Amino acid sequence: MPVHMELRRIIISEIHEQQVILLREVDGERSFSIMIGIFEATSIDRRVKKLQSPRPLTHDLVANVIESLGGELRDIYISELRDHTYYAKLRIRMNGENVEVDARPSDAIALAVTANVPIYVAEDVLDEVCGE
Amino acid sequence: MPVHMELRRIIISEIHEQQVILLREVDGERSFSIMIGIFEATSIDRRVKKLQSPRPLTHDLVANVIESLGGELRDIYISELRDHTYYAKLRIRMNGENVEVDARPSDAIALAVTANVPIYVAEDVLDEVCGE
Repeated sequence: MPVHMELRRIIISEIHEQQVILLREVDGERSFSIMIGIFEATSIDRRVKKLQSPRPLTHDLVANVIESLGGELRDIYISELRDHTYYAKLRIRMNGENVEVDARPSDAIALAVTANVPIYVAEDVLDEVCGE
Repeated sequence: MPVHMELRRIIISEIHEQQVILLREVDGERSFSIMIGIFEATSIDRRVKKLQSPRPLTHDLVANVIESLGGELRDIYISELRDHTYYAKLRIRMNGENVEVDARPSDAIALAVTANVPIYVAEDVLDEVCGE
């Protein structure tokens, strides 16, 4: 069963290349962090703070493309942890069918925050990172 | 008439925040430059140099979303120059119809290089920046 998560913190460090986002279970106590790049971290941070941008940024473009082609982003799903790397999918409803598009978790989470859709994580990923 | 352009140079400066890409007419001599951010410049640069990335980056995600939803990116079109800002569109063929999605030129050009589609500029934009 996918577990509903929320973005809890974004930790931006100017001295490290890798930034950290912390996801926490909505109906529970478990949480884990994902390392992401500075561009994605600042992109997520701008969205959380609702900073306006004069032009659509790259993650707005992804959202606009989905909508313009008639799709509806339902949620994003962190599906797998393999060799210390997380894998995610955008889950899109299109003409009555489900379409999944592979994405890095950082892009997927930036898009979830942009489009205001839920973030899910596979139960076994959560078991693995939080202990059972 | 849209004018077919090619990406001629990317000038990345580590001391300035704004980077420069130079577009040049394919069948002519006119060229002009666009200022873009460092993230977009490095994204374009990686693509031009065909540097492999272990994971799909944000502009790959845009291309994957278009393809997964059944669209075909035909070209990108820099359509307007207003208050010193360029505006662009992704032109997508979808179910026999043309769909246009607004984008910043930097995202549009990064996508054109990723998906290997032509870059067009409106004739009046070119007239304005190059003189008539």
